[in-house]
Amino acid sequence: MKKLINAPEDVLRDSLIGVEAAHPELRVDHVNRIVYRGTPKADGKVALVSGGGSGHEPLHGGFVGLGMLDAACAGEVFTSPTPDQMQEATKVVDRGAGVLHIVKNYTGDVMNFEMAGELASAESGVEVATVVTNDDVAVQDSTWTAGRRGVGVTVLLEKIVGAAAEEGRDLASVLALANRVNESGRSMGMALTSCTVPAAGKPTFELPDDQMEIGIGIHGEPGRHRVPLAPAASIAEQLVEPILADLDFTGAPAIVMLNGMGGSPLIELYLMYGEVARLLEKAGVTVARRLVGNYITSLDMAGCSVTVLRADDEILGLWDAPVSTPGLRWGI
Amino acid sequence: MKKLINAPEDVLRDSLIGVEAAHPELRVDHVNRIVYRGTPKADGKVALVSGGGSGHEPLHGGFVGLGMLDAACAGEVFTSPTPDQMQEATKVVDRGAGVLHIVKNYTGDVMNFEMAGELASAESGVEVATVVTNDDVAVQDSTWTAGRRGVGVTVLLEKIVGAAAEEGRDLASVLALANRVNESGRSMGMALTSCTVPAAGKPTFELPDDQMEIGIGIHGEPGRHRVPLAPAASIAEQLVEPILADLDFTGAPAIVMLNGMGGSPLIELYLMYGEVARLLEKAGVTVARRLVGNYITSLDMAGCSVTVLRADDEILGLWDAPVSTPGLRWGI
Repeated sequence: MKKLINAPEDVLRDSLIGVEAAHPELRVDHVNRIVYRGTPKADGKVALVSGGGSGHEPLHGGFVGLGMLDAACAGEVFTSPTPDQMQEATKVVDRGAGVLHIVKNYTGDVMNFEMAGELASAESGVEVATVVTNDDVAVQDSTWTAGRRGVGVTVLLEKIVGAAAEEGRDLASVLALANRVNESGRSMGMALTSCTVPAAGKPTFELPDDQMEIGIGIHGEPGRHRVPLAPAASIAEQLVEPILADLDFTGAPAIVMLNGMGGSPLIELYLMYGEVARLLEKAGVTVARRLVGNYITSLDMAGCSVTVLRADDEILGLWDAPVSTPGLRWGI
Repeated sequence: MKKLINAPEDVLRDSLIGVEAAHPELRVDHVNRIVYRGTPKADGKVALVSGGGSGHEPLHGGFVGLGMLDAACAGEVFTSPTPDQMQEATKVVDRGAGVLHIVKNYTGDVMNFEMAGELASAESGVEVATVVTNDDVAVQDSTWTAGRRGVGVTVLLEKIVGAAAEEGRDLASVLALANRVNESGRSMGMALTSCTVPAAGKPTFELPDDQMEIGIGIHGEPGRHRVPLAPAASIAEQLVEPILADLDFTGAPAIVMLNGMGGSPLIELYLMYGEVARLLEKAGVTVARRLVGNYITSLDMAGCSVTVLRADDEILGLWDAPVSTPGLRWGI
């Protein structure tokens, strides 16, 4: 295992030290492993809390800041944060208007966020609502998931719903929007290589030199099938077709993300985006906004995922609203 | 070779198609392989043109836009663009105030930009000035370089000098600033793995599982030495010490970049930044601004580089000025 780390058991701790040093505009609670905005937000603003296992950076800590999250809880690599962490984050960010938990659909995350919400509500009187993202069309159930996995739409949802919360919308309205965004998005990913979890010290799975995994999960969970390595144009088809088969994306503007899994260079991600854009155009999908880069990753896995979100004028307006986080920044 | 590409010989062409599709705010000349700003700039503004071999994305095409470059010429992977490309870019962006060529110190780039400048001057009367970056402290000469290689400072220079040009400074003043920024910055990089050039189809060099290369070049050129794999804290020392030994960074604010080589995930880059920040603080260097992520890459190479720039109030002001490019965006 070749990694830029000290001891495998210290990766999360050491990385959060770096996040704090790199971003004076954020605050890091090293005991509870929570990243907060440095500037407290206004009273009456609904707060957004997300979190999950580490190894998907910039998700979630890199999306804390004006216009996105108020706090992110970091679990160990590919391991859910604990209810304690989530409860603490929820209490700290509440400004009396309630807190939205944004949870990717993995059994541990869902269970722990549910418990944290109940505790924060019972012990501190915080009103908590929850959206569970489940946009991955690849598989119905998976290693750590009942139902579809939550993947790329989580990034877009945090941006869009973050802007709505910033506008001062109330918790019910923010929750309704969050559910609508989740239901309007679909994703599909693929891997050329496995990732290597530091604590494991070896690749999560073996993938022969002439094969790739279509429908991979962001923790290296099995996808739909292994197929022979193919040109980018064919890979794009294998990702886009299942997305378009699952939801009608015509007749509305779409937000598209071509996401890198962490180990694929940007020159390849742009190349893939070109292929994806061509297919979407051919299918009559009007792309209104796009994002190309590493946004929800799987450590050092080589590969990519495609997310398509059926938007409308309201969602595009929220997308364009100012955002200032380590991972996404514009308009400010 | 596992890559998200079609044919190896089409990587650059296909990737530029993706850049154009992903960034409607940019223009791509596919014949000459030049990325331009979509919004023509004001008459009288000095124009900035850079370029080099592809495979270092987001450098340079990802730094075209308000507050940075006016155009970037893309060569084949790790291969200098031709004088024709550079001449064309120079002619197109000139608004009568002259053009600054920003050239990383590699023999091919330097020679071709020199020829392009002479041709643009002779044939179109464009006033051209040139800054050659040479900030890599690792080695004196290298595979493709007489003198030090130009690496990470190029990113910082394009941002800082781009802001100065945006302010309306004249060519002589922009050139003087560019030289001052180059002289004030130092970099050092390392690799855990080789990269694989698509046309070659195999890793550029072999690096045993228990070794790393300190002082690596951005094309996989040999560095100072191969040493046993070490913890991040030790890697940071091996990068920071030669930088601090080469220039005094105390008594002034510093801009620091922890750059990923393309194949290292963000969690590791933040971890490395934490180690670097600790060493700089210990050495009495005051870090005023920082950048962590993939900015000047080497395809899929795992590894990182550190760049430290000795700044002042003027440079910090230019650093903070609005910028809107695919790779760097703030204040707008």
